Amino acid sequence: MKRSTVSFQGEAGAFSQIAARELAGTDATPVPLPTFVEVFESVAGGKCDAAVIPIENTLHGSVHENYDHLLHFELEIQSETFVRIVHNLIAPEGVSFRDIRRVFSHPVALNQCLRFFENNRGIEKVSFYDTAGSVKMITEEKLTDAGAIASAAAADIYKARILKKSIEDDRANFTRFFLLRKPAARSKRSREDGSTYKTSLVFTVRNVPGALFKCLSAFALRDLNMTKIESRPLRGKPWEYLFYLDFMGHPEQPSAKNALGHLAELADMLRVLGCYPAAKSTK
Amino acid sequence: MKRSTVSFQGEAGAFSQIAARELAGTDATPVPLPTFVEVFESVAGGKCDAAVIPIENTLHGSVHENYDHLLHFELEIQSETFVRIVHNLIAPEGVSFRDIRRVFSHPVALNQCLRFFENNRGIEKVSFYDTAGSVKMITEEKLTDAGAIASAAAADIYKARILKKSIEDDRANFTRFFLLRKPAARSKRSREDGSTYKTSLVFTVRNVPGALFKCLSAFALRDLNMTKIESRPLRGKPWEYLFYLDFMGHPEQPSAKNALGHLAELADMLRVLGCYPAAKSTK
Repeated sequence: MKRSTVSFQGEAGAFSQIAARELAGTDATPVPLPTFVEVFESVAGGKCDAAVIPIENTLHGSVHENYDHLLHFELEIQSETFVRIVHNLIAPEGVSFRDIRRVFSHPVALNQCLRFFENNRGIEKVSFYDTAGSVKMITEEKLTDAGAIASAAAADIYKARILKKSIEDDRANFTRFFLLRKPAARSKRSREDGSTYKTSLVFTVRNVPGALFKCLSAFALRDLNMTKIESRPLRGKPWEYLFYLDFMGHPEQPSAKNALGHLAELADMLRVLGCYPAAKSTK
Repeated sequence: MKRSTVSFQGEAGAFSQIAARELAGTDATPVPLPTFVEVFESVAGGKCDAAVIPIENTLHGSVHENYDHLLHFELEIQSETFVRIVHNLIAPEGVSFRDIRRVFSHPVALNQCLRFFENNRGIEKVSFYDTAGSVKMITEEKLTDAGAIASAAAADIYKARILKKSIEDDRANFTRFFLLRKPAARSKRSREDGSTYKTSLVFTVRNVPGALFKCLSAFALRDLNMTKIESRPLRGKPWEYLFYLDFMGHPEQPSAKNALGHLAELADMLRVLGCYPAAKSTK
């Protein structure tokens, strides 16, 4: 039987690959690609069976580029997961902690491990373009005085060793990922499986005071709980007042179905991006 | 007279420095710092007079880390601006376009100039940790076959030449910046200066359906226009349902003052982060 494929943006060992493993299973072959557009294209064009994309991070916010792609490509969100971003100090085989004089990683990762560098003044931070890529580089170059900060998966893939686990300052650093497929490839799933469902949608309203308030009444008047709302107030664009909204519910439930009908009356544009079992954000 | 200072995160020539020039004037001395925390601390601790921070980008979304710092440091938003992110191909003095074989920049910038690379197949993309930093590197190393992608300001600072202007694929790439000062350092400004004012605030509500809807009624029932709303749905944190909201209005206006009073009744926590003349997002 042909193995299924799941694409993601980044180098092998990226946090997206960890999410891909969780969402598509360990049997699916991971396909690393350089850009998010290529990830969406890989599924839309039939080269890959599924894609995994980051959609928001608790420190950095939403990935608007991916919301844009969700609008433009006709893919469907089929599941979500939250991955805790754990930064590890990683070194090539044979290099021990006392050998380390410099540590490579993406500047965002370096800046999320400041306490480690404060406690180890002799170690220099060196900016690199990617977390997993820095592990790849230090192992390929066989550096004897260098470490990298990246995921445990990156250590595994590049056959390097974790010298110190979880050196990040803030443990409340989570990224939310979506698994996307073509709508036709939807696995028929009964709502009766005990999961609590979440629905993600995008809509636009005219720029008049109270327009959003009216749209939210569709949910509030039916006691449906919103878990996310975000506006995109970019001027001079046709989708000027775009809102992303997640609520707890499944369009097969009468209240959720009626709320979506009510919202469709009020919004200029409305699209349901997917409906999927809600994941827990803290593990 | 002592020149005032304005801190920002990044290397000299970063887009934040362009914003700092706009918001603090060309007389203020720019102070580049490695992290956002250090930028906030520089003003809170009195080392710098003002700070400029990015708060959201039209492609990448809000910078939640900076919203967090706005909560934890007692600084005030005193003005805002939108800077269009223009990527230029930059080379050291004496290097011409036909010499270029590789181009260094931050991967995000490289990926925002894909059309340029499609049209110039002989040129290789090389990931680097920073846009302005890549100009610094190619000029310091006197590379004769390399270019960098960065702001025009970076070309200026490192005495390099712009070979091609504005090579980014999407021109709708704007970053919104705030100028922050200590509340005591507030320049007394009359609301009668003809500007339209915007107020930024943050509040929390209990996780019950309709709680946000009620809070928004404080604005909708008074015809006050919201320009941004964003939730931060991270579980297991004391600020579990944090909302960032911007609306057009000044707390000296009766309707805005009443709306804030009404919101204070409904919200668990409410803080006004600043009130400032609204900037236009398209220039």
